[in-house]
Amino acid sequence: MNFHELMNKRRSVRGFTERRLTDDEITKLLEAATAAPNACNYQSWHFYVVRGREKINGFVPKIYRGEWFRSAAVVFVVCTDAGQLEARFGGRGADLFAIQDTACAIDHLMLMAAEMGLGSCFVGAFDEDECRRYLNIPDSRRPVALVPVGEPAADTPKRPRKPINEVVTFAGEEE
Amino acid sequence: MNFHELMNKRRSVRGFTERRLTDDEITKLLEAATAAPNACNYQSWHFYVVRGREKINGFVPKIYRGEWFRSAAVVFVVCTDAGQLEARFGGRGADLFAIQDTACAIDHLMLMAAEMGLGSCFVGAFDEDECRRYLNIPDSRRPVALVPVGEPAADTPKRPRKPINEVVTFAGEEE
Repeated sequence: MNFHELMNKRRSVRGFTERRLTDDEITKLLEAATAAPNACNYQSWHFYVVRGREKINGFVPKIYRGEWFRSAAVVFVVCTDAGQLEARFGGRGADLFAIQDTACAIDHLMLMAAEMGLGSCFVGAFDEDECRRYLNIPDSRRPVALVPVGEPAADTPKRPRKPINEVVTFAGEEE
Repeated sequence: MNFHELMNKRRSVRGFTERRLTDDEITKLLEAATAAPNACNYQSWHFYVVRGREKINGFVPKIYRGEWFRSAAVVFVVCTDAGQLEARFGGRGADLFAIQDTACAIDHLMLMAAEMGLGSCFVGAFDEDECRRYLNIPDSRRPVALVPVGEPAADTPKRPRKPINEVVTFAGEEE
């Protein structure tokens, strides 16, 4: 599968089968996440790996409302850990670079999941404070996304994108 | 090349040959960028594609200091375009989701570049205001990264990552 095929295979999956993930599969996903590009190679991220029916059910509905979330085999709670970036770049380090780093890590994780035949979803609309309490996340980290992963329960169509020319402006001329 | 190989091939490249990119290559990179996961499929991004020696040289040193930047074949200036996300989610839409969307787009673009044998770099430490003026970027968009792309002038080693266990916490038990 080349990258064009892989990126088209990747889609937001909201519903999973009963199949659990092995430790090796979870490691493979984390290795992909941490291979992502990131500012100064500080690796300003931390991953909470949440497993087990009971612990995952505890997310719904207080942290995240969707009932489908309960079907996840694993939930990755992705946090920024921006101490070094903030020391070097101030607010721009914490509020921009660390968010970009973690988003690239999630993108990598989701692409690896797709290659492994797994589905995933980038969930940003959740209650950060409740999540922080639930997992005892220290102040030095900020949970910025929930990424449930599992075997897709059904096929999901790829959602169409705007034509390229609607989101692109050309500047300068090739000489 | 499977995804594990591709992600290891992708690295930050800071120096390019004289080879220019074709329109088809640029389109392929933009198609990869826009296939990225994004909040609500609003596609809260806009891409300025900057070509031509003169226009690219104008970035250095006012917008970005590194002299190597001049060697890029193309510079993608990636902006958030967060109107819809902000209307729906307020500040969280503009300051979190749109930054995550654009970072995933950049990650996709860099992976596609790697597959095409091209190099790229995620440049976050640049002067946003100068960049905005240089390209006449409207207030509705925010430039969040410069991504120079070209044929790598030299091999760059992949930088090592921390061991997984340093950036992961497990929660819950598989029953």
